[in-house]
Amino acid sequence: MTLNAPYDPDNIFAKILRGEIPSVKVWEDEHVLAFMDVFPQSEGHVLIVSKTSTARTLLDIEPETLARLAEATRRTARAVVKALRPEGFQILQFNGEAGGQTVFHLHFHIVPRWSDRPMKGHGHAPMAEPETLRALADRIAAELD
Amino acid sequence: MTLNAPYDPDNIFAKILRGEIPSVKVWEDEHVLAFMDVFPQSEGHVLIVSKTSTARTLLDIEPETLARLAEATRRTARAVVKALRPEGFQILQFNGEAGGQTVFHLHFHIVPRWSDRPMKGHGHAPMAEPETLRALADRIAAELD
Repeated sequence: MTLNAPYDPDNIFAKILRGEIPSVKVWEDEHVLAFMDVFPQSEGHVLIVSKTSTARTLLDIEPETLARLAEATRRTARAVVKALRPEGFQILQFNGEAGGQTVFHLHFHIVPRWSDRPMKGHGHAPMAEPETLRALADRIAAELD
Repeated sequence: MTLNAPYDPDNIFAKILRGEIPSVKVWEDEHVLAFMDVFPQSEGHVLIVSKTSTARTLLDIEPETLARLAEATRRTARAVVKALRPEGFQILQFNGEAGGQTVFHLHFHIVPRWSDRPMKGHGHAPMAEPETLRALADRIAAELD
């Protein structure tokens, strides 16, 4: 997959956005969805996606959509920190297979970090139980401002 | 260093912004500076910082500043891709020591990736020669739109 391949409307996040497969939502509005990564690299790993854009990567995102995603990432990260009290966190955004991207609908990762817990590799973490993710999502959502 | 420690005006990026230590600039405007990472994790590793904010992390960035940084990151990443033709790239933003942050002035990393070149560890890459970085910065700057 090259960086400038066309958008595939059957990617897994497009299916989530169409409600064809389930996700554990943290919050959403008309533009943005925040949901739990089912292969969390650490406890409380959240993904932020646009509900309207068909950008695959940062190269083809509309500036207005990017601004919304960045603000949604900031807002959600604050709630993650309040809810889970990590020692740190990483914002990751991967572009192209060589850049670590596995789903070709642009997304931002929020990965909480604790110094005594190693971070699992992207694409190598075990699948989490939906009930575990739902409980984390509820704790995070309760701290949104 | 906790996530909510106060801003240290003697951090290395603050010194760069005050012109007290040199940097290899890609571009700047009144709000944002894009410059080459002197410990590049791959060829063409660029950093994006605010020239006005004293935010340490994503938790304390002003939304307007974040929007400017995100747009600057997008614009610069496009130029990096045009100039260096990586197969992919990563946007990284680290918060707190446990989150991998080493300089406590909020910044975004643009790290080009090639599938046949391993990425060097953050904080473990050798220092690059200024002339090498200047040549890369010039190539990237020539592709800004």
